[in-house]
Amino acid sequence: MTLDASALDALFRDARTHNVWTDRPVEDDDLRGIFDLMKWGPTSANCSPARFVFVRTADAKQRLKPALSAGNRDKTMAAPVTAIVAYDPRFYDKLPHLFPQADARAWFAGNEAFRNSSIQGGYFILAARALGFDCGPMSGFDRDKVDGEFLGGYGWKSNFLVNLGHGDPDKLFPRNPRLDFDEACLLV
Amino acid sequence: MTLDASALDALFRDARTHNVWTDRPVEDDDLRGIFDLMKWGPTSANCSPARFVFVRTADAKQRLKPALSAGNRDKTMAAPVTAIVAYDPRFYDKLPHLFPQADARAWFAGNEAFRNSSIQGGYFILAARALGFDCGPMSGFDRDKVDGEFLGGYGWKSNFLVNLGHGDPDKLFPRNPRLDFDEACLLV
Repeated sequence: MTLDASALDALFRDARTHNVWTDRPVEDDDLRGIFDLMKWGPTSANCSPARFVFVRTADAKQRLKPALSAGNRDKTMAAPVTAIVAYDPRFYDKLPHLFPQADARAWFAGNEAFRNSSIQGGYFILAARALGFDCGPMSGFDRDKVDGEFLGGYGWKSNFLVNLGHGDPDKLFPRNPRLDFDEACLLV
Repeated sequence: MTLDASALDALFRDARTHNVWTDRPVEDDDLRGIFDLMKWGPTSANCSPARFVFVRTADAKQRLKPALSAGNRDKTMAAPVTAIVAYDPRFYDKLPHLFPQADARAWFAGNEAFRNSSIQGGYFILAARALGFDCGPMSGFDRDKVDGEFLGGYGWKSNFLVNLGHGDPDKLFPRNPRLDFDEACLLV
């Protein structure tokens, strides 16, 4: 099936990165709903290395604050939830469960967790939009501080951050252009 | 808006990685349509490093063949189109056009092209599904061979491959499990 125009608009054509958030909350069940879509997206041998820390209490936001770059601080503190998109460098320990057909550990070079967790981060953003939430993805933060504060006990590593909520469309910047097909693509 | 259940199924819940393809073609206009959705997905400062080579002629498929791992060879040769998801390591040369608000070049460390092109690869897969196509993403191939054969003149580097077409649902493997929310997520 082809999605209808309004769905394509909501996912891609009209969706924007938001910086100013309304008071409308994001509930824990919403986060479960986003994850339960995102998880179905394909990864190399189903390795599924992405991990998520949902920072949604005032206390946890304060722990995140010192790690944020200046330009990302206020909007992140105001967002209902900030997701730390992370990955488990030992993702391959789950492969006997996730890919029981073969001993898939040997297939994985070191970059697979970063690559596949980034791809899953793309799925995450679109899954959130598919459920009606706006996103504000960011890479401007101190990775070591975030890892030490939130991930150390798990051995996970941060990839990027995504503010989640309902953005205020009146506070959007004008949209920047994209590359044309002929600048970015070859047909051979 | 929240997408309806059939759209969520088509994007995530029922969509599968395909290995066997029907004869139904993928036209160049379809590839333009996928790109014209994918391109709107967010990247760091709109840097948009992903590049795509659409391998769709018999001659180009033959050039791709020696680079494919044994398990990916037959299904790729049979797919209507194989997309090389690549990135331009000199993506920052486009920033004056893509992000005119600031001199954004200085913000970018070496890994941004790989990270953001991977995220865009996730958008690409979901954009293709949104337009009714099936995907078969793969990382089992000889990167140097693909780069030398298809990308060298452009300075681009390959990230992963995606077979595109209409899959035969009768030839799917049983679906593998995914991690549960509580295995992959923390609420703080």
